[in-house]
Amino acid sequence: MAEAAIRRRGRSGGGAARRAERTGLKIEASKYIERNIPLFNILTDEALEVIESNAEGILEEVGVNFVNNPAALERWRNAGADVDGERVRIPRGLARKLCETAPEKIIQHARNPERTVEIGGNTLVCAPVYGPPFVRDGAGGRRYATMDDFRKFVKLGYMSNWLHHSGGTVCEPTDIAVNKRHLDMLLAHMTLSDKPFMGSVTEPSRAQDSVEMCEILFGKSFVQENVVMTSLININSPMTFDDVMMGALEVYALNNQACVVSPFIVGGAMAPVSVTGTLTQVLAEVLAGVAYSQLIRSGAPVIFGAFVTSIDMNSGAPTFGTPEASQILYGAGQLARRLGLPFRSGGGLCGSKLPDAQAAYETAHTHNAALLGGVNFMLHSCGWLEGGLVSSFEKFVMDADQLGVLHQMARGIAHDENAQALDAIREVGPGGHYLGCAHTQSNFKDAFWRSELLDYKPFETWADEGGRDTQALAAARVEQLLAGYRKPTIEPDIEEALNAYVANKKASMPDSLY
Amino acid sequence: MAEAAIRRRGRSGGGAARRAERTGLKIEASKYIERNIPLFNILTDEALEVIESNAEGILEEVGVNFVNNPAALERWRNAGADVDGERVRIPRGLARKLCETAPEKIIQHARNPERTVEIGGNTLVCAPVYGPPFVRDGAGGRRYATMDDFRKFVKLGYMSNWLHHSGGTVCEPTDIAVNKRHLDMLLAHMTLSDKPFMGSVTEPSRAQDSVEMCEILFGKSFVQENVVMTSLININSPMTFDDVMMGALEVYALNNQACVVSPFIVGGAMAPVSVTGTLTQVLAEVLAGVAYSQLIRSGAPVIFGAFVTSIDMNSGAPTFGTPEASQILYGAGQLARRLGLPFRSGGGLCGSKLPDAQAAYETAHTHNAALLGGVNFMLHSCGWLEGGLVSSFEKFVMDADQLGVLHQMARGIAHDENAQALDAIREVGPGGHYLGCAHTQSNFKDAFWRSELLDYKPFETWADEGGRDTQALAAARVEQLLAGYRKPTIEPDIEEALNAYVANKKASMPDSLY
Repeated sequence: MAEAAIRRRGRSGGGAARRAERTGLKIEASKYIERNIPLFNILTDEALEVIESNAEGILEEVGVNFVNNPAALERWRNAGADVDGERVRIPRGLARKLCETAPEKIIQHARNPERTVEIGGNTLVCAPVYGPPFVRDGAGGRRYATMDDFRKFVKLGYMSNWLHHSGGTVCEPTDIAVNKRHLDMLLAHMTLSDKPFMGSVTEPSRAQDSVEMCEILFGKSFVQENVVMTSLININSPMTFDDVMMGALEVYALNNQACVVSPFIVGGAMAPVSVTGTLTQVLAEVLAGVAYSQLIRSGAPVIFGAFVTSIDMNSGAPTFGTPEASQILYGAGQLARRLGLPFRSGGGLCGSKLPDAQAAYETAHTHNAALLGGVNFMLHSCGWLEGGLVSSFEKFVMDADQLGVLHQMARGIAHDENAQALDAIREVGPGGHYLGCAHTQSNFKDAFWRSELLDYKPFETWADEGGRDTQALAAARVEQLLAGYRKPTIEPDIEEALNAYVANKKASMPDSLY
Repeated sequence: MAEAAIRRRGRSGGGAARRAERTGLKIEASKYIERNIPLFNILTDEALEVIESNAEGILEEVGVNFVNNPAALERWRNAGADVDGERVRIPRGLARKLCETAPEKIIQHARNPERTVEIGGNTLVCAPVYGPPFVRDGAGGRRYATMDDFRKFVKLGYMSNWLHHSGGTVCEPTDIAVNKRHLDMLLAHMTLSDKPFMGSVTEPSRAQDSVEMCEILFGKSFVQENVVMTSLININSPMTFDDVMMGALEVYALNNQACVVSPFIVGGAMAPVSVTGTLTQVLAEVLAGVAYSQLIRSGAPVIFGAFVTSIDMNSGAPTFGTPEASQILYGAGQLARRLGLPFRSGGGLCGSKLPDAQAAYETAHTHNAALLGGVNFMLHSCGWLEGGLVSSFEKFVMDADQLGVLHQMARGIAHDENAQALDAIREVGPGGHYLGCAHTQSNFKDAFWRSELLDYKPFETWADEGGRDTQALAAARVEQLLAGYRKPTIEPDIEEALNAYVANKKASMPDSLY
């Protein structure tokens, strides 16, 4: 049985073991999830073929816009598309053909080789929340995020043993100038964690900075030959590819770095209200975006992204963890697999303002759909609150703990002789109990997943300890983790060079709001 | 597309419409869920065959105990089993053969024909929490349940439009003598709701009382020819069938009433710590129990039950909503379908003391597994708290609202011309938005499921209204629902006869603690 994903947890040979000895603190970390269970395929082949045919029809007939990007239009024209102003109409079959050179699986390297992840096939790599301008915790409430908050989230991510990836903009450090904050964010990921991370996409020049900082961290030739960043390229749905995002994609593709090409859709606003209509548009957009990445560099690593949610037609608010969002996730996963691309979707998505029951219901729906729907890269796995406006400290550790559920589910069900447990059933017999039997004794340690956060105590103990809810337990865990944080070791020369790069870059330009 | 389950919502022809007119209150109620999506089959055929073979081997070699029940032993001996004291060893193939006469689908009638449910095949019928001795609400905390609490839960169940079934012991009315409380409970289900319900199982004579009260409510011949109760028969795992539960099963089977034959297992205590070992024992127990029901009356309606959870090996506490519990649910569903029996499992199970994020994570895991795992009858769908010790008013309405998510997921994904939405994509084009387009206008009302409880408001509005969490929103909803409750109409003669039956029965015996 492929229980490798779990057995790997706590593995600490070589460098990690030496580091642990030096620091006195052992960070257990699970590798990415490898699924040993089937996937849930909600759509029939017939439905998939309808969607695929319609998507190609839309590309040919309606087309997509590449805005402020004459070079992109030129590339499309040379590839055989019909270019009219900024509108690119792609003949049936062309985009799909171009997508064929994108790899099925991406190995993203971490500076600690034990944290290197595989994205594609039967894997699921979990990365934290991305993008919120606010943070919230129980004590301080909701407030604008700062660089200090950012560093705390990176530390929490480093210490979360079911989280595989350090992510990107875990919150927007609003106290740093917009044109400089990417430097501080990358420096934090590179020095406060040893997990893989994402590059900047807010300007092509910032993508270039990301590449250059990686060249310092990993070495220049290593970066050209290996993926060391997976960065988020959103499509301006419907069917618009803006020059900023495409400029960043161009930098990354040229440098052989991975991008998630991701429609960002609130159904009913940026796509039709129907699931099938939305899937059609998602596929058309991803086909165009991935095909474009291959025009930049054939073989550039790309992930089929689908960030799709629904809308509350009463208030116009986006809603999360809804059944329609799950249906779209399941369907998009099938489309990605048929295209042979790694798939990004899911996350601990919710609309709630607080890390309460609503947040957890919605998050669990999306987590489950991500596992069974074949997601390979799950951004926003933990910490997402209030429709993505807020990074929540408590929810970060709550969701990160829940990712353990997905790991255990993914192990599948062994049915070897030990798992069959016939001797145990014979030994115990009718009316007995299994607590002390030989099979239980030799298997109990690994038999059941155990939360490190949730309450399993007797009522009286729980009441004596203050009758805390999950948010209160999580607040205590945040404090405990941050107090126990120790920085992973890094070559002093490299850290110095990174600091110098950031200082020089910052000194080279005035602060800017854009 | 089979979107019937949803379209039926709000249907109010005939009697319901007239009732609504009379009372001025319209109770919308969805019929049971009919799945238009595939199921998630976690086990391979090979694994299923191993489990089936092992279960039959256990029945033959180890056997089961029928305690204090000489008539049962006699029945087994006559059927060809090897009976040794109270131990019944069932030759390979016999139990499975006996199960063949149990029906694949059960139609349970409600006194309001529009609330009649089908249990089996592609359906999912949701019933509320069963059994807790305590109740909890935000204002009153945790306290022993009373008959007044019981009536409130029945009223809430009646008014929950995604809940199909009134259930049974929605909480234990501890202020009524044990030997009389079944009478008050049944009377409440029969008069305060018009949804289907469960009979008493705590004594064979109380099962008989349940049948007699149904004869008053439905008419004697109707009860003999139709299922009007689905009652819960727990197996004392491992592999013990006690005389009280079997006595109740005998009464119901003789009267052609449905029973859920359900192992009650905390894995690691009442079954092996391994998923496959537990599934083996579950199957052996259900085979023996269902076979026994067919010995009582061939063709008696029975449901394959599996109430299985895991244990925290640190504290010994049972845990809920865990990945192992989901794996067992998925596997047991496959076993039930191969046996051709309706399947009971799932529920809003959780270990949390409060209706907080833990409760919701755990509940959502189990709800999702129940939907995708093919559950036909989901007891404990809403209201379960603290490992089943507590019926929570807030969690009742929270979970009941969440059942709407399952309804919408189960609809599946239409791909007809309207769902394809090609005209909308053409109409809007790159850079536009769909809010006002023709397709959105004609579809938005039914496009997205909408919670009637959760918060979708802008942050400022939410904050102005007190910044309430889900529990606070739920407390308000409980109050609002109970204030708006109107009793469904019932023939005065029938109600009088029921009241008289209960009064006479109560007067006929002294209060007892057993």
